[in-house]
Amino acid sequence: MEKLEKQIEAVVDDILADYRKNREIDQMEASRQPDKDAVIDALEKLRRIVFPGYFREKNFRVYNAKHNLSMLIEDVMYNLSKQISLVFQEDGRTEADARQTCLTFLGKIPQVRALVQTDLQAAYDGDPAATSMAEIVFSYPGLYAITVYRLAHELYLLGVPMLPRIMTEYAHSVTGIDIHPGATVGKYFFIDHGTGIVIGETTVIGENVKIYQGVTLGGLSTRGGQSLRGKRRHPTIEDNVTIYANASILGGETVIGQGCVIGASAFITKSVPPCTTVSIKNQELQLKPHGNCEGCSKF
Amino acid sequence: MEKLEKQIEAVVDDILADYRKNREIDQMEASRQPDKDAVIDALEKLRRIVFPGYFREKNFRVYNAKHNLSMLIEDVMYNLSKQISLVFQEDGRTEADARQTCLTFLGKIPQVRALVQTDLQAAYDGDPAATSMAEIVFSYPGLYAITVYRLAHELYLLGVPMLPRIMTEYAHSVTGIDIHPGATVGKYFFIDHGTGIVIGETTVIGENVKIYQGVTLGGLSTRGGQSLRGKRRHPTIEDNVTIYANASILGGETVIGQGCVIGASAFITKSVPPCTTVSIKNQELQLKPHGNCEGCSKF
Amino acid sequence: MEKLEKQIEAVVDDILADYRKNREIDQMEASRQPDKDAVIDALEKLRRIVFPGYFREKNFRVYNAKHNLSMLIEDVMYNLSKQISLVFQEDGRTEADARQTCLTFLGKIPQVRALVQTDLQAAYDGDPAATSMAEIVFSYPGLYAITVYRLAHELYLLGVPMLPRIMTEYAHSVTGIDIHPGATVGKYFFIDHGTGIVIGETTVIGENVKIYQGVTLGGLSTRGGQSLRGKRRHPTIEDNVTIYANASILGGETVIGQGCVIGASAFITKSVPPCTTVSIKNQELQLKPHGNCEGCSKF
Repeated sequence: MEKLEKQIEAVVDDILADYRKNREIDQMEASRQPDKDAVIDALEKLRRIVFPGYFREKNFRVYNAKHNLSMLIEDVMYNLSKQISLVFQEDGRTEADARQTCLTFLGKIPQVRALVQTDLQAAYDGDPAATSMAEIVFSYPGLYAITVYRLAHELYLLGVPMLPRIMTEYAHSVTGIDIHPGATVGKYFFIDHGTGIVIGETTVIGENVKIYQGVTLGGLSTRGGQSLRGKRRHPTIEDNVTIYANASILGGETVIGQGCVIGASAFITKSVPPCTTVSIKNQELQLKPHGNCEGCSKF
Repeated sequence: MEKLEKQIEAVVDDILADYRKNREIDQMEASRQPDKDAVIDALEKLRRIVFPGYFREKNFRVYNAKHNLSMLIEDVMYNLSKQISLVFQEDGRTEADARQTCLTFLGKIPQVRALVQTDLQAAYDGDPAATSMAEIVFSYPGLYAITVYRLAHELYLLGVPMLPRIMTEYAHSVTGIDIHPGATVGKYFFIDHGTGIVIGETTVIGENVKIYQGVTLGGLSTRGGQSLRGKRRHPTIEDNVTIYANASILGGETVIGQGCVIGASAFITKSVPPCTTVSIKNQELQLKPHGNCEGCSKF
Repeated sequence: MEKLEKQIEAVVDDILADYRKNREIDQMEASRQPDKDAVIDALEKLRRIVFPGYFREKNFRVYNAKHNLSMLIEDVMYNLSKQISLVFQEDGRTEADARQTCLTFLGKIPQVRALVQTDLQAAYDGDPAATSMAEIVFSYPGLYAITVYRLAHELYLLGVPMLPRIMTEYAHSVTGIDIHPGATVGKYFFIDHGTGIVIGETTVIGENVKIYQGVTLGGLSTRGGQSLRGKRRHPTIEDNVTIYANASILGGETVIGQGCVIGASAFITKSVPPCTTVSIKNQELQLKPHGNCEGCSKF
């Protein structure tokens, strides 16, 4: 057993030596990094503030709603400010700046709630499988991802680095829906099913837009890498557009005009005029009868 | 700092005023809503009941299996009944109704286990990468999603609103596989990889069917929205059908006959006769040599 | 109420009778099965060892890095060895074998870190939306899935059954990216967005390869089932290849030559020579103006 202890110590020493190689992976300033768990905890509390009647605090009632809300807001204010101040260090912003930014952010909550109410309505109106608004709040991944995006987007607009992305990538992990916090999305936005959706950083989406699983609103090529940072790379989707499953719409100059319906699996890299239905020309399918399958043997 | 406190109070008051707008998002009756965490906790305990040998209770052995099982069943009975009674309130059903429904549901467990055993066998038979049954129980998202679906489907058939959907959307979140609890699925069902699969509410799937990642069994158009509720909108897949990755099969009148093989990425909106192999006609690809890439420079 | 107790007991007895049917689902040897939670806990600790500066131990600083690292390594050594010994039982390997295997595995960590550093660099270089290396470590699902794969792959190479798959399927659940631990992947590997990616067991990927969401590197047909176990079924991707979203590359004899660019949604079952750009011939789209939509009514 003494041998084992020595072997473990050798492993530890090897890894410590490896830590001294001064690569990005070796940086050791955990105290300057945000705490991802704290960011996600704040996000979940923000969701409870957005939907006050859908999450149980054991004694949450209208008559003590103020008390409960105050506790949640103070919790988020204290903990999220701390995380903001950590990411503000990089460019010399102070703790006071972080507190002010967090306060401004919390002031946006009614505005976020007004938008999320329209998204909730859009999900109910748009999905015959929805039996109640509560079912949507409790179980629809689309509404979850949109709510997180709308909160993260406000932080993004306030110039907070990294934390908005941690929030939307958390929602991506929970839902399979990847909305970059930099995207712009109008009201009455509905995402159905949602797994595999990608909405890039510079995408602009109008009002009353409906998107299905597997849709990409992406860039045409990223071979430029970091040289493309900040440039418009993703499409514009105007009001009242429906985009069916697995369609891809790519490029910063591509505009899908208002009222368009984009068929499933369409691959679009050029603009489409308003009020147009786009469908792929019937994919040619080959149908060949085959013998000796388990199905055939039943005839 | 006093200023900060006042500012926080102003934020709280704004949000409280916002809560009084009487929209769906403002409803405050948390006590009438199910507790999502409790539903998911019951679901995980149901999974342990389905697979008694794969999850550790520290001292789970055959000789005290009865004791362990009793504790799990009583726990689920107590907690799930409570959640059922919350969703039963809406249409005036009583706590006694909820208890009876929960009991009937628990009585279906042997039937669910008989089906899940066939699904486990189908996964082992169908996947050359599977090295043991235990590997499938522990790590295959397909079996996870199917097991949750089979449990939720029984609750759905018993007329329990919302909770079955919370369960399958939880599985959707864990696996990327979205099976509506209303779908009908025969035995020996195998899902491989699974991310991005959507199986709609009125889908009917026969026995011994195999489905790969990205497959949609969906509706043709949902523009009817709530007016389509309850109507047949999703396809029928007969026995012994294989559907390869990213194929879409759409529409309530579409029937894929027994023994069919549907090729990857096929897009199907019409019925296919039994024992037919469907493939997309060779997609025309353009191959262009390019110069000056990192690859070229090595020649 | 006495009636209810009797009914619950009847349910318990039915399920106990069901457990005695001696199917795979009925096996009761939980004590011989690995503990999935323990495996995932070890995995998360391994991630903290790989990225020492990005995860907070409350007092993690350079001057006590050795102390912290020792504690993590001893924890993983103790708990992961135990899990390895459980899966080693099946073929008669001993606890001492398990300890030795775990130690050898921990000795590979510097090698894994060297590779992950290149993956981190590749993500930064390749994505204009990345604003810092820290953002990538904290929020990119691609780097998460690759890191877990690289750790699990070392265990796979050491002949540990089941545990590597539990690890990569856990990452699949978190990210939607399914990389089998048996795949071989060179350095500077970048996955963007990632949801829906499948990389099969016998895939070989070179250096500096970039892959987008929805890409399948899969088998041509799995109808052979278990008879195909161990055979080469998945493609080879040479150095410096880019594969855009939703492309599928299938088959064990398919080789994508170095420097190739594979266009979005391409479906490839044959080899492609080096330095070739492959794109699907313009998908024919039908554009039909429609009247009376919400968009039209605005003109």
